[in-house]
Amino acid sequence: MSPPPCSTADLAPTNLTSTVMTNGTGKLTKATNGTALAELDPSKLKVTITSSPKAYSSPDSTQWGMMDATTDHMITARWTDTHGWHAPELRPYARMDLWPTASCLHYATECFEGLKAYRGFDGKVRLFRPSRNAARFLTSSTRIACPTFPPDAVEELIKALLAVDAAKWVPEPGTFIYIRPTMIGTGRALGVQKPREALFYIIMAQFPKLDNPMKLLASSEDSIRAWPGGFGFAKVGANYGPSLMAQKEAQTKGYDQILWLFGKEAYVTEAGASNFFCVIKSKTTDKLELVTAPLDDKIILDGVTRRSVLELARERLADEMDVVERRYTMQDLAEAHDEGRLVESFAAGTAFFVAPVTDIHFRGKDIRPAKGGEEGTYTNKIKSWLVDIMYGNAAHEWGVVVEEKGFKSEDLAEEEIEALMEKIKTLKASKAWDAAMERMKTEELGEDN
Amino acid sequence: MSPPPCSTADLAPTNLTSTVMTNGTGKLTKATNGTALAELDPSKLKVTITSSPKAYSSPDSTQWGMMDATTDHMITARWTDTHGWHAPELRPYARMDLWPTASCLHYATECFEGLKAYRGFDGKVRLFRPSRNAARFLTSSTRIACPTFPPDAVEELIKALLAVDAAKWVPEPGTFIYIRPTMIGTGRALGVQKPREALFYIIMAQFPKLDNPMKLLASSEDSIRAWPGGFGFAKVGANYGPSLMAQKEAQTKGYDQILWLFGKEAYVTEAGASNFFCVIKSKTTDKLELVTAPLDDKIILDGVTRRSVLELARERLADEMDVVERRYTMQDLAEAHDEGRLVESFAAGTAFFVAPVTDIHFRGKDIRPAKGGEEGTYTNKIKSWLVDIMYGNAAHEWGVVVEEKGFKSEDLAEEEIEALMEKIKTLKASKAWDAAMERMKTEELGEDN
Repeated sequence: MSPPPCSTADLAPTNLTSTVMTNGTGKLTKATNGTALAELDPSKLKVTITSSPKAYSSPDSTQWGMMDATTDHMITARWTDTHGWHAPELRPYARMDLWPTASCLHYATECFEGLKAYRGFDGKVRLFRPSRNAARFLTSSTRIACPTFPPDAVEELIKALLAVDAAKWVPEPGTFIYIRPTMIGTGRALGVQKPREALFYIIMAQFPKLDNPMKLLASSEDSIRAWPGGFGFAKVGANYGPSLMAQKEAQTKGYDQILWLFGKEAYVTEAGASNFFCVIKSKTTDKLELVTAPLDDKIILDGVTRRSVLELARERLADEMDVVERRYTMQDLAEAHDEGRLVESFAAGTAFFVAPVTDIHFRGKDIRPAKGGEEGTYTNKIKSWLVDIMYGNAAHEWGVVVEEKGFKSEDLAEEEIEALMEKIKTLKASKAWDAAMERMKTEELGEDN
Repeated sequence: MSPPPCSTADLAPTNLTSTVMTNGTGKLTKATNGTALAELDPSKLKVTITSSPKAYSSPDSTQWGMMDATTDHMITARWTDTHGWHAPELRPYARMDLWPTASCLHYATECFEGLKAYRGFDGKVRLFRPSRNAARFLTSSTRIACPTFPPDAVEELIKALLAVDAAKWVPEPGTFIYIRPTMIGTGRALGVQKPREALFYIIMAQFPKLDNPMKLLASSEDSIRAWPGGFGFAKVGANYGPSLMAQKEAQTKGYDQILWLFGKEAYVTEAGASNFFCVIKSKTTDKLELVTAPLDDKIILDGVTRRSVLELARERLADEMDVVERRYTMQDLAEAHDEGRLVESFAAGTAFFVAPVTDIHFRGKDIRPAKGGEEGTYTNKIKSWLVDIMYGNAAHEWGVVVEEKGFKSEDLAEEEIEALMEKIKTLKASKAWDAAMERMKTEELGEDN
């Protein structure tokens, strides 16, 4: 039997006179009626362990793209504009109740993060730079008028979920799990407005390895993913739904993803939902360059993998290449290709990791890096450095070890006993308690006789 | 007790090999495995009348902006990529079950419509040009890779919901109700892809009159609503969430809505989620012009009210003014204001109807139409023509009368009896039925004796 849906619907009606104030650093302060709003607080986490755990399924056996292959538990935390954050809960994974008028179903008041946890070859579970995801999650939530929170609290709650589920779902060295923190506006007023209620939740799912060589179809002139002054830099739902039509077309034509271009100049921006990199031999200096689009237009995602690739390359490949964030066009790429200067290219992101690109189709022309597919020396080098950090082969501050708390049956009993002791503490103060203890003693005496 | 949530979650796993094909006119044809996909079919509507009707609340008494004030029933229809459309259901208004991985909660695979039904002074309920909403709903759903459908079917289902709920919820001449058809992607795979399952639903809610005079704050250079090659023309969720931050800022500064500008030229596009009109005395011809932004960039919504305003003005005001759809900038507007040529301006849409604009603040400058607020001769004229059509004072093809079926208690009894007769028909074939009838007869005889 599946657990009952977790309700986001029965919140008390909110107070008309209150408005949320933030101090701009992700800290909630006060409602305008003067009452302090509660902060998201991982130390208040209520834990309910499932009594009907799922059967374990390996990532390879899951019908990816068809169903979810989520783990046993999820974390949820409700927010209202009168109270702020309610205590977060770790609870059995379950469906959610939403009112048909919920803000997120009409106005795309929703954002998410994607990160992975890896079981290292030393047996430890690591997150890769989770603080970067937590910080970006706050940026995204703010961009769509959803609540703010301390990013550290999100990171801590991710760890709390892994502490419970990692033992079963990331069992062997070399395995990983995908983690999806999500924020949705749940306020049930139909008027177009900042949501007055929201739900933050974290789920985890099995995910296949997707870093196969990739073919890209350049976007057509009448299809633009993002624009300056828009929200291309944020991981908000609004960036994805409108891109699916183009993606479907690409797949129908035999490509894996869209290479998103911008403007009449056809600036290269992103590959699907990943960042895009090229290794090009410079026309002027004859030196190799690792090139990717810059962040300053705020039209591309500030990817954690993107940032890590740039930082590692600057640190370890400085002698061999220049590492450059700059605007470049499809014409630049086509010219480099025709002159034999386009050496490698790859997409970089959490979902597809570092996926080499073999082909780019741009309005009638096929552009193929000289070392496409799995031959890319630098693509492979960068990928292996990241793998070493993720799986703990190389000690690095980006790999953040998670302390696990395997919930086996003994632990469950311990949990229950602990909960009972807590209950006893609160009941001990009442007279009824003393009377009951007396009765129990009498009965015991009776039995002894 | 509230009715149980309507589940969108327990759909059978879909078939890996099938893909949806559409013929481009909103007709689903076949899955690639050769099976025909079912079309959305209002004749298959299953009706379940609520046994716990809500208390009626008038629009004025509802805390608009806080809670929803929805009616007793809703219509839902599920779609899967293997079956197509399942039979639609009219059922008690209730919460909905969604998986935490549902596409609409992450990727903004969601779109909606907004229209109203009006109780005329002849006692009849009318929709205003519902076929235009249904057609636009298809455009929107297609833009975000959600299912297609025959627009007529949507119009018919809207009428079916009104047939049941209008008697109670649009009781008096002069009252109206807001109708919200919604489409959400419910597929539970986390991968970014065209949803394999979707839910179409229609709800209705009490809505206050919002056509008060309005003050607008022009958007800043670093905040744009829509762009060419994007989705500003479609009523998709992705257009709303990212606009809320700017809207909140406008309200904090004492304005009602944002006047959305586009580009370095500061082209005038939309007012909040409404279209925007000006009455300007032309600099060159000295003639009056009714001006609004054109649709050809596909960055503004093809509003039903917008279209109706243009059509009525062209038909009835041709002698007095030119009616023009063209690009114009804030500079044009500021100049017209300074030279005393900006006569009136108003926002037009379903939610705010025709709302006169009194003030526009544009980067330090206040622009005020000469006849702002409720003094606008043309604003009032156009508004009253629309009101006459909506409430049946003037016979017009845009006012579409809805046939009502008041579900009072007798009807409910009729419904129950009908259901019982259906049940009897299916049971009559069994031997147990005959035996039971025999027993009943014997008992009756016994009583008679």
